[in-house]
Amino acid sequence: MTGTISKQALRRLPYYLEYLKKQRDEKQVVNISATIVANDLHLNEVQVRKDLAAVSVTGGKPKTGYVITELITDLECFLGYNNTKEAIIAGVGKLGSALLSYDEFARYGLHIVAAFDTNEEIVDNVKIFPAKKMADLCERLHAHIGIICVPPSQAQAVCDEMIKSGILAIWNFAPTHLRVPPEVILQNENLAASLAVLSQNLAIEIGEGSNDRKG
Amino acid sequence: MTGTISKQALRRLPYYLEYLKKQRDEKQVVNISATIVANDLHLNEVQVRKDLAAVSVTGGKPKTGYVITELITDLECFLGYNNTKEAIIAGVGKLGSALLSYDEFARYGLHIVAAFDTNEEIVDNVKIFPAKKMADLCERLHAHIGIICVPPSQAQAVCDEMIKSGILAIWNFAPTHLRVPPEVILQNENLAASLAVLSQNLAIEIGEGSNDRKG
Repeated sequence: MTGTISKQALRRLPYYLEYLKKQRDEKQVVNISATIVANDLHLNEVQVRKDLAAVSVTGGKPKTGYVITELITDLECFLGYNNTKEAIIAGVGKLGSALLSYDEFARYGLHIVAAFDTNEEIVDNVKIFPAKKMADLCERLHAHIGIICVPPSQAQAVCDEMIKSGILAIWNFAPTHLRVPPEVILQNENLAASLAVLSQNLAIEIGEGSNDRKG
Repeated sequence: MTGTISKQALRRLPYYLEYLKKQRDEKQVVNISATIVANDLHLNEVQVRKDLAAVSVTGGKPKTGYVITELITDLECFLGYNNTKEAIIAGVGKLGSALLSYDEFARYGLHIVAAFDTNEEIVDNVKIFPAKKMADLCERLHAHIGIICVPPSQAQAVCDEMIKSGILAIWNFAPTHLRVPPEVILQNENLAASLAVLSQNLAIEIGEGSNDRKG
């Protein structure tokens, strides 16, 4: 994969992807050549061959062509569909706002690319969107990670909205139990419980266990 | 322990505590009676008997009196010296400020009782103090938990200052390695690493492992 590709070629990639998925799902195609793709899509064969070569990681084989599942993965990867580095955040109160401007994420290549709240405004140069725009934005940005920083009472509704919008991994800061389907990864972050653990360890350490005698 | 005690009695407690520690450490006293305490401190015996009874958890025994180590623990506990529920925070930027006003701590009986920063100001009705007041305030508040939310470059200096001020447990949000003496509990909270773990799990889940082929 060269990594460089013309703007015109980039515009063709989603069509290849859509076509290949159909071939795989509806016709159970396993291998496919650039010639067949070009014929089916009425495109110039040389152009298609060049496009697919630019995107494919392992490349096509002389006789069989591309393994269709690999080519689909490569296209999705190239197009950023398998984006696992960008997240959206819902709830831009104190904590959400702190996460939104948290420099450290960038050190891991992570970025919060869209923020949602009932109050539409600009926070740290980031525009805050209303929840109804979540599905549209997630699709356009191919974001699959959602951070929940809303109050506990709203967390499940926001979680459901995220999943409907294509979010596959949820980082939940709301101190409440969330129900998610099995294919969605849920990671709970309970800051108060973390401090409580430290407090408890300290109590054990300095022997406040003597309080037990009060029982 | 009745839990109710007059203001005058409360003022006497630190003197009992100081006296008892001296008896334990310098004279290896194991048991002590209210009579001896009253005599040594030139106080009214009935008063002393009443004060100690109000504070002691297990109470004194008719002949031997109080077990001195237990009475010391009970006094410290009563005076809040073994406070494991109150914390101070250093660094009131975005994240520190979010923690400072984080309601959830109270659900665990935890409170941030003092905040320090180079910028002295009022944040959410909490006065921010300069670091030089840390030792004095920690002693007065008997706070033993310190939360570090300063930039990584300042974290070790702040950590050292906290330990000098009597902090015994540190909750570190600065993404840097802190050196603490063995008696101090250190709990690191790396939010960026948490999100990175989620991102990594998502990448595995949706098969971005295909990137490995790019090798």
